[in-house]
Amino acid sequence: MAPRVLVIGGDAAGMTAASAVNRLVDDVEVVVLERGTYTSYSACGIPFWIGGEIDSCDDLVARTPEQHRERGIDVRLESTATGVDVDARTVTYTDAAGEHTLAWDRLVVGTGAASVRPDLPGIDATGIHTIKDIDDGHAVLDALDGDVRRAVVVGSGYIGMEMAEAFAGRGLRTTVIERESTPLPIVEDHIGEVIAEAMGRFGVELVTEAEVTGFGTSDGRVTSVQTAEGEHEADIVVVAFGVTPRSSLLPDAQKGMKDGFVTDDQQRLTGLDDVWSAGDCVVTLDRLTGDLVHVPLGTHANKQGLVAGESIAASLGATWSGRTFPGIVQTAITKFCDLEIARTGLGEQQARDAGFDPVVTTIETTTRAGYYPGTESMHGLGIADRSTRRLLGVQVAGGAGSGLRIDAAAMALWNGLTVDELVMTDLSYAPPFSSVWSPIQVVARALTKELAAGTGRPA
Amino acid sequence: MAPRVLVIGGDAAGMTAASAVNRLVDDVEVVVLERGTYTSYSACGIPFWIGGEIDSCDDLVARTPEQHRERGIDVRLESTATGVDVDARTVTYTDAAGEHTLAWDRLVVGTGAASVRPDLPGIDATGIHTIKDIDDGHAVLDALDGDVRRAVVVGSGYIGMEMAEAFAGRGLRTTVIERESTPLPIVEDHIGEVIAEAMGRFGVELVTEAEVTGFGTSDGRVTSVQTAEGEHEADIVVVAFGVTPRSSLLPDAQKGMKDGFVTDDQQRLTGLDDVWSAGDCVVTLDRLTGDLVHVPLGTHANKQGLVAGESIAASLGATWSGRTFPGIVQTAITKFCDLEIARTGLGEQQARDAGFDPVVTTIETTTRAGYYPGTESMHGLGIADRSTRRLLGVQVAGGAGSGLRIDAAAMALWNGLTVDELVMTDLSYAPPFSSVWSPIQVVARALTKELAAGTGRPA
Repeated sequence: MAPRVLVIGGDAAGMTAASAVNRLVDDVEVVVLERGTYTSYSACGIPFWIGGEIDSCDDLVARTPEQHRERGIDVRLESTATGVDVDARTVTYTDAAGEHTLAWDRLVVGTGAASVRPDLPGIDATGIHTIKDIDDGHAVLDALDGDVRRAVVVGSGYIGMEMAEAFAGRGLRTTVIERESTPLPIVEDHIGEVIAEAMGRFGVELVTEAEVTGFGTSDGRVTSVQTAEGEHEADIVVVAFGVTPRSSLLPDAQKGMKDGFVTDDQQRLTGLDDVWSAGDCVVTLDRLTGDLVHVPLGTHANKQGLVAGESIAASLGATWSGRTFPGIVQTAITKFCDLEIARTGLGEQQARDAGFDPVVTTIETTTRAGYYPGTESMHGLGIADRSTRRLLGVQVAGGAGSGLRIDAAAMALWNGLTVDELVMTDLSYAPPFSSVWSPIQVVARALTKELAAGTGRPA
Repeated sequence: MAPRVLVIGGDAAGMTAASAVNRLVDDVEVVVLERGTYTSYSACGIPFWIGGEIDSCDDLVARTPEQHRERGIDVRLESTATGVDVDARTVTYTDAAGEHTLAWDRLVVGTGAASVRPDLPGIDATGIHTIKDIDDGHAVLDALDGDVRRAVVVGSGYIGMEMAEAFAGRGLRTTVIERESTPLPIVEDHIGEVIAEAMGRFGVELVTEAEVTGFGTSDGRVTSVQTAEGEHEADIVVVAFGVTPRSSLLPDAQKGMKDGFVTDDQQRLTGLDDVWSAGDCVVTLDRLTGDLVHVPLGTHANKQGLVAGESIAASLGATWSGRTFPGIVQTAITKFCDLEIARTGLGEQQARDAGFDPVVTTIETTTRAGYYPGTESMHGLGIADRSTRRLLGVQVAGGAGSGLRIDAAAMALWNGLTVDELVMTDLSYAPPFSSVWSPIQVVARALTKELAAGTGRPA
């Protein structure tokens, strides 16, 4: 009988693993249990769909359940795994027909993450949403069909910022409430201030240093968001407090930050035989600090799913590609209206916590040669370690073309470059694209100046 | 008496060196001899000025002679160096007042490069231009004031392509004549075909595999460009056959490709004491092959000028930054109308010539997530070494956002990454910017597939 590979979760990580196994192993049964009704969709695209930039959620689906089935994968929708018996090698799950038990030879846990719903008075009122999957998107779009004029977004991470843009773009009066002093806490305050300025320019109200204490309701519908400093009227609310790994199915597995699963570099769960995990439910190695961190992004889920699938295939006799997941450097990119924002590496506090002696500097440059038409302002921030002169982090915010600059910095971090080495790398230059020094090298040069300050050494 | 640093050439390399010396050494005399009337200008911007995208050539000047003088640099314009006596440590030069001799303690040769003017019948006719400095730009703009309707560009390197865009943008019927089978010979044919398609779309006629044999003239004015296959009527012609280093001032210096000066990694001329050189007149180390190559780009000129200036300052007692010029990986970027084009590393033949066993593959992807509004087509080509699996080169052409992708590939080459390593690096992803696999990683994945073909190893 063909071995059975059972995959829990039909999104990026799970379906990538399932597809790899199905492609690489001749005689294998691949079964996928998916709670919802979609597979392989881009969760990252949901705010843009709500904002109307993307017409249909179908556009977000890279491969439908039918397409997976045509390739021989047994996709079971609306099937929720309820328990895993690692010793007996079974999974129990429920669907419309009731509860079932399924045996497995290899297990992939791709359960993803769940939106954080803070335990605040009124949180269960109608009109309060979180954004994680396509059903969440339908719920918001249904709500927007009603008489909805005032939106409040609580939290200004990626999802918060993207939802603020989506609401404002639909003509709602939109307020963002953030606990910290600047928006998008994954960037330093200096970059946050650039974002705050853009929010003002695009008519989104920003309330900072405000702790949400509860929600005003009327007839079970949300009417306001309450903070210690005052109340913000709201017809619709998105709570964007981030996500936590869904890891409760395996209570005995080793867990790290936010209870995410700990895996080896082939995505095998530590301490459990023949169980792999990938995507938003795992923690990953930060290459700069050596810490295991929880960074739920589709790009990691896809890579980890591929690694897991190839590793499983090898365990079933296929030739192994040798591919492992080497960790991350916390690269991320987003936009708010016409402002592109990206980061890679560590923030100042992260660097200090990891034992580095961070030197921080900021620069302002242009997206093209200063004299070239269409050039726009671009802000940068760099962090380096004082003793080793190693680059630790770069953050940028600016006009078109700013965001993708982060990739050069990410590659510098990946390879452990010093700021001096980065200054001299061979990055592209032509007037429609850049000043003669790439913005990332402008950051690196500013860091050499900061490192030289007071030392008598030129920079 | 303060030591005198004499700089021949007042453009990027020379003025960067002069400025560094002036900044870092307390008691020094810095004299710059410049043939023309401008300093520190962006030669790369000249085609865009001719095309009308930039209003004035003044916009191209980063720092005027007056600004340099205010900082204490003795800039002498319209002063042409005619000889260097390395033993006597003197330079002779001519200006309006006649010939002069100037002693130096340290010499910088920043003489740049000269446009190649092929020895063809009719080449000296009025209306035939080359494009290298601001005076060339004025000459073309003056010519365009007349009754000029048909432009022919001979050669389709950067300058040729940019001038074709400039002429077409001004409404001239424009033809590009190229010896090879596809335009822009610094990219492989596959990418060249994408460019050829864009030229057709923008109404620029492309004639390939055509050798120019001479120029038709009437009353000393050009009337056509002649090839073995036929004649192309022309009111104005740009000959864009590239440039050669201006290195004749120092006949005894060691020279490399195209007679460019050979320097050490502090830009000191090999075999000559106290003489430095930087910019378009030197050859530079290709980090992938170990060869010395001539790559005349402003980005290298600026970096080399900085290295030279700091090295000179150190020789005069200043603390040395430790900065050296580490070589290049032949990164370059340009655009033709709305098509962005970039390359880094080696082409297939270059790789073969350098002793690698190149594997080549091409991909087509999108500039944003496939479902995101405004996504455009993007073509990529990758080259890897079969035995080491090391990345050797990447080339791209596509819509907005394609070009700068090359920087991630350039950093991968810089650090000697294999294609397998590149696939797993942490590059940025969000739907407005990318598919979940960055285009450079799509290229790398395609290379792993190509490398696996026939080996039984998955990719």
